[in-house]
Amino acid sequence: MSTKEVPYKIYLTEDEMPKAWYNLRADMKVKPAPLMHPGTHQPLKAEELTPIFCDELVQQELDETTPFIEIPEEIRNFYKMYRPSPLVRAYCLEQKLGTPAKIYYKFEGNNTSGSHKLNSAIAQAYYAKKQGLKGVTTETGAGQWGTALSMACAYFGLDCKVYMVKVSYEQKPFRREVMRTYGASVVPSPSETTEVGKKILAEHPGTTGSLGCAISEAVEVATKNPGYRYVLGSVLNQVLLHQSVIGLETKTALDKYGIKPDIIIGCAGGGSNLGGLIAPFMGEKLRGEADYRIIAVEPASCPSFTRGTFAYDFCDTGMICPLAKMYTLGSSFIPSANHAGGLRFHGMSTTLSQLYHDGFMEATSVEQTSVFEAAEMFARIEGILPAPESSHAIRVAIDEALKCKETGEEKTIVFGLTGTGYFDLVAYQKYNDGEMSDYIPTDEEIAASVAKLPKVD
Amino acid sequence: MSTKEVPYKIYLTEDEMPKAWYNLRADMKVKPAPLMHPGTHQPLKAEELTPIFCDELVQQELDETTPFIEIPEEIRNFYKMYRPSPLVRAYCLEQKLGTPAKIYYKFEGNNTSGSHKLNSAIAQAYYAKKQGLKGVTTETGAGQWGTALSMACAYFGLDCKVYMVKVSYEQKPFRREVMRTYGASVVPSPSETTEVGKKILAEHPGTTGSLGCAISEAVEVATKNPGYRYVLGSVLNQVLLHQSVIGLETKTALDKYGIKPDIIIGCAGGGSNLGGLIAPFMGEKLRGEADYRIIAVEPASCPSFTRGTFAYDFCDTGMICPLAKMYTLGSSFIPSANHAGGLRFHGMSTTLSQLYHDGFMEATSVEQTSVFEAAEMFARIEGILPAPESSHAIRVAIDEALKCKETGEEKTIVFGLTGTGYFDLVAYQKYNDGEMSDYIPTDEEIAASVAKLPKVD
Repeated sequence: MSTKEVPYKIYLTEDEMPKAWYNLRADMKVKPAPLMHPGTHQPLKAEELTPIFCDELVQQELDETTPFIEIPEEIRNFYKMYRPSPLVRAYCLEQKLGTPAKIYYKFEGNNTSGSHKLNSAIAQAYYAKKQGLKGVTTETGAGQWGTALSMACAYFGLDCKVYMVKVSYEQKPFRREVMRTYGASVVPSPSETTEVGKKILAEHPGTTGSLGCAISEAVEVATKNPGYRYVLGSVLNQVLLHQSVIGLETKTALDKYGIKPDIIIGCAGGGSNLGGLIAPFMGEKLRGEADYRIIAVEPASCPSFTRGTFAYDFCDTGMICPLAKMYTLGSSFIPSANHAGGLRFHGMSTTLSQLYHDGFMEATSVEQTSVFEAAEMFARIEGILPAPESSHAIRVAIDEALKCKETGEEKTIVFGLTGTGYFDLVAYQKYNDGEMSDYIPTDEEIAASVAKLPKVD
Repeated sequence: MSTKEVPYKIYLTEDEMPKAWYNLRADMKVKPAPLMHPGTHQPLKAEELTPIFCDELVQQELDETTPFIEIPEEIRNFYKMYRPSPLVRAYCLEQKLGTPAKIYYKFEGNNTSGSHKLNSAIAQAYYAKKQGLKGVTTETGAGQWGTALSMACAYFGLDCKVYMVKVSYEQKPFRREVMRTYGASVVPSPSETTEVGKKILAEHPGTTGSLGCAISEAVEVATKNPGYRYVLGSVLNQVLLHQSVIGLETKTALDKYGIKPDIIIGCAGGGSNLGGLIAPFMGEKLRGEADYRIIAVEPASCPSFTRGTFAYDFCDTGMICPLAKMYTLGSSFIPSANHAGGLRFHGMSTTLSQLYHDGFMEATSVEQTSVFEAAEMFARIEGILPAPESSHAIRVAIDEALKCKETGEEKTIVFGLTGTGYFDLVAYQKYNDGEMSDYIPTDEEIAASVAKLPKVD
């Protein structure tokens, strides 16, 4: 345990920042199942992926054996602008809870995109630039990923086309303006700019769009325009690789003070933050060097781990993307309209799915009113207005700390505070006005979408 | 000049953080003129101020001789949650500009209130709590101060009543929700909750409010309710004292790397950020130990320093507050409706006014389209979306760096980046859409409001 007095915030020096990403798959005895072609049901080869993704990112996607992959200097220089992110000792929260537990959080919200998404956005933009591309396309829902990518593209002088789910485009005009300020073109999806968009608009004239539809449009534009590729902010192995910078910094910061965590907690949508935060700790666990309780927290309204099925499924609602073996609620599952914020993906990272399947981590789900209760408490005590997504981890960290209060155990809890809630104030307003409700899908609803899973031998 | 290689961000350790605020007035040979009673025109005594302000803050307001005032431990602990703020070397901006100048900025936006205002809010809330008060009242316009005070009051368990200018209340619902999340009651001003509000509403039924009116309501509530006091986020000497933490951290960070700035630049509305940033440097200048160019930047639409008069005037538009000797455009001056963001105060800190009058600093004004041009450039290169207020300093820092490019001089420029622009995206949208314009008041307009200055012997 701690030998030196721990400051409120542990910052690494530039010398202590990671020089390589950690590829968790290298230490997994049972590797995640490969992505499969949706038509042939054969594992996808590099040459089938390079028309969609940048060459070097395809290599990273498929690399299961190299444990450390060097972070190019250009990316490290960009990281230096907003990283290292602080590892914060939540002294005030501990005191308020009256817990003997020691609580730490890794805060990834101190950058204009407002979340950890920038860690992978800058990497993906760099490799696109290096390949001599003109630009990239992507989709965005809540807007954190689109904002991060816009910033990354502005830095490298790349064109950035963002397909933003129409309902978010209209309800989150400020997210849109941040992206425009960074020079991105933001198109409400579905749009008249693509064939698939025109088709959907003809069939459903009043539609407010979906993530699946936005993905389809972004992929179409990337593949039809020479010099463009498609990029994605979660789920993929390459994204978890880039996000390992979160966990590597966290581990170095803890090691500096001789701290060994007992419990590591992260929210889970597609798995980008959780996979990054836990990477080096899970590595130790896989190699038998240390043991940690690792907890994924998901919304009760979209419970992939806790109520989903471990099977091959489409990554997108539009069923045009590759098949991935993961915990899934079925690609036709759509969370209740009352669900605020992100973490609304029906599936999960294949790497995290395999680890959960093999018993290396736990998962739990929480209802959103209790999440916002934790968010408000945290904001008042620790002075940071958290994103709704991050607040899932806060909820469980508080619950675990309160268990320690009962048992008297001095456990060390580390959780990921992925971002800030400045663009989520419509949801906060609902909570402040007592108008927020919970929704838990019925077994029948989940069974109905799981029944539509593709048949794979 | 620099001896060690300077990292992208210089963070102080907790041990290096200031333990006392620096009271610049102690080193001024010519002290700022005292506040005067608006009726008797006599200098205000402590006992006349204590019904409005907390006792210990009144002492700080009137103390012209004590150079260092200890920061209470409770405040230092709160500071540790979001401070030290980074002093950032703008390597990327320097490279983009192709300037030999070295540019640094002190970034105060890494906290949920989004600006430096929290530095004084937490101090004022602490002294209110220490005095055993129930709560505090204040006004807010753009909302940074109200948000900061809400956070501070939540931390100390104080009631917080914020009178928010009605037009901002309606146009900035997200600012309002952050304050509510921190437990503050936010009332659109003018309101039916005060006598002065009722009177104004009866006379001007459709009014969208003004800062002056909100001040009047907040002061009325503070003085009529036992256990309440009024607090203010700028202009006052006590506020400059608390904000000296910005400059003290900046100086310590520069000293660590042997860096001596040539030019120090800050935006100026009421003077809270500028007065805090320059404090220790101005102290050296006043004591003849060093010399610096110090530049205040104000909007061309509200040019107190550059086109105002050095005279006694009311601090508020409602003319109920004390008289202060300052550079003023006249308390009836209202900036053009097209002016975005803060920095719209007609007057200026008395301390800064005296220093400017005595030739210890320069002032310049900039037009808002050129400010947003600098803001967008900065966002894209340095990865931080700046507040419109802060962007005034960015504009002049860039201009000075470009002058160095012409002359080849390797000057060291330090500027204050007071906050982030997440709640200013209506203004960014105007700029992105090419709909932003400039307005410079005519000599006649300024002469008309200056003509209404109170007659003081």
